[in-house]
Amino acid sequence: MSKKLSEFDLIDKIKTMFPTPQNMIGIGDDCAIIPQASGFDTLVSTDLLIEGVHFLRQDIQPTLLGWKAAAVNLSDIAAMGGKPIGTFLSVALPSDCSQEWIDQFLEGYHDISSCYNVSLLGGDTTRSLNTICINVGVVGTVPHGKALQRNTAQVGDLICVTGPLGDAAAGLKIILSQLPRLDHESALVLRHYHPMPRIEEGITLAATPGVHAMMDISDGIASDLRHIVKASQVGADVDVERLPFSNELLSVCQKYNWDRVQLALEGGEDYELLFTMDPQCHPAVQYHTIGQITDSNTIQWIGGNRTYEGFSHF
Amino acid sequence: MSKKLSEFDLIDKIKTMFPTPQNMIGIGDDCAIIPQASGFDTLVSTDLLIEGVHFLRQDIQPTLLGWKAAAVNLSDIAAMGGKPIGTFLSVALPSDCSQEWIDQFLEGYHDISSCYNVSLLGGDTTRSLNTICINVGVVGTVPHGKALQRNTAQVGDLICVTGPLGDAAAGLKIILSQLPRLDHESALVLRHYHPMPRIEEGITLAATPGVHAMMDISDGIASDLRHIVKASQVGADVDVERLPFSNELLSVCQKYNWDRVQLALEGGEDYELLFTMDPQCHPAVQYHTIGQITDSNTIQWIGGNRTYEGFSHF
Repeated sequence: MSKKLSEFDLIDKIKTMFPTPQNMIGIGDDCAIIPQASGFDTLVSTDLLIEGVHFLRQDIQPTLLGWKAAAVNLSDIAAMGGKPIGTFLSVALPSDCSQEWIDQFLEGYHDISSCYNVSLLGGDTTRSLNTICINVGVVGTVPHGKALQRNTAQVGDLICVTGPLGDAAAGLKIILSQLPRLDHESALVLRHYHPMPRIEEGITLAATPGVHAMMDISDGIASDLRHIVKASQVGADVDVERLPFSNELLSVCQKYNWDRVQLALEGGEDYELLFTMDPQCHPAVQYHTIGQITDSNTIQWIGGNRTYEGFSHF
Repeated sequence: MSKKLSEFDLIDKIKTMFPTPQNMIGIGDDCAIIPQASGFDTLVSTDLLIEGVHFLRQDIQPTLLGWKAAAVNLSDIAAMGGKPIGTFLSVALPSDCSQEWIDQFLEGYHDISSCYNVSLLGGDTTRSLNTICINVGVVGTVPHGKALQRNTAQVGDLICVTGPLGDAAAGLKIILSQLPRLDHESALVLRHYHPMPRIEEGITLAATPGVHAMMDISDGIASDLRHIVKASQVGADVDVERLPFSNELLSVCQKYNWDRVQLALEGGEDYELLFTMDPQCHPAVQYHTIGQITDSNTIQWIGGNRTYEGFSHF
């Protein structure tokens, strides 16, 4: 078996890889210290990733898992229109987890941290009995009162998304079905493993008057839109013919006779932003209008005649 | 088997038990939102608790685990002299975990949250394959630049602690040795299961000029003092005869012929505060002076002639 790291070796390694910005205190004390600014709000989110539930060790490269573990949290900051400041990484490692595994995991975590200019400011390291358990917390900031929540959609708002839907779900289906990975398949698998949180788009949308409600698409748009509709006590009409799809998805759906609408609605982890806005609004981001908020208290999927449900973790 | 909760039932239950203060957004959106105040710093800490490593399900009442899971994080805020604002609770539950277990866990978590007036502002719920995995994050606040760190001890400082040492370690020994729990034993077991983070003491110490460095005692004072000495590039002389002990500990040590100094130095989880201060300083908290910071770059345990090492999680 490979060399094992002690807890303190691991912390030292992480401290070296992830230097703390000058105006903050990061790893090494009881808490991280982040200065506050008047007129801003702090955003906090946290996610648990459990081996065997959220990932299979033999099926995902640790670099990709490291990327994705941070990505899903950064996407929560994007979903409010915030700017991420720092993350907190806790890992529980079983004795059969090699130093190579944790090295590669940290490499992927480092890549996304650099890509989005976000600091690793703390966390926890411990052993576990048999499964890897990862918790990522993230702290961000947003001008006071400007965070875009789920409960502020207004009747008459357009419903929009920042990018194509269903790619990550198709990628997962390709992985699970062990299909050959030609160009299009590989691109979809990458969309599953390597999501790009829409931080810049979120910041722009939060600064655009007339954008009312927002969240990220993590469970599939059917489930996620239901959250906005329920929280805002409104309804929605969605034209499934207007859902945006990538060329890769269209090609693979045709090849394998898959239902692209089902992939978009039920399949999660696209991490695009779903938002509602006044029809007069023209935010300076790429987006696709897919429907409109109504006063009906139901969601109608126009152009489709079945019920779509997001999946539950339990 | 008992009734199982779905993820959404559990989140609804938690939302009802833990209302969000009016000026914040808590559970139910992508992130929690906490207003910032000019002139303050945000403190963040996070801890993982893994079944089989940090606790045994059959050995700890879930109410006590709920208390302790939050307590160790609140103690990290106390260790910097901060005021806790909100916590973030993530739980991964295997299918054999009953509704009663999680209900009682939440009851203990609720008790300590009420006791310290801290809000549960978010988290994550998921399933796990076979072990309970809990992550608690905490966010606090402290006047800008006033957080007490580990690297600011000064030569000549007195070394002090806020309360008796070794109780929690003795309590753990009583549990593991399955000793009869008479009055004194029960008190020590409670000190292990039900630590009281020294929040008020921490705030007072951070506001007292002349108090220089601080941390909480989580791994045993031998290990924890080493962190301060190493970070501050100083040394320490500690008089082991001046270590404070509870009457319960003295009585149980006499009864079972245990070494009280070893319990204090090697045994963790007392969650008292360890701090250093100018000898002219008289902070308005209960404390015991146990030694002095030196320029020697070593720690001398005067009155004892053995090497004491804190234990490692790995």
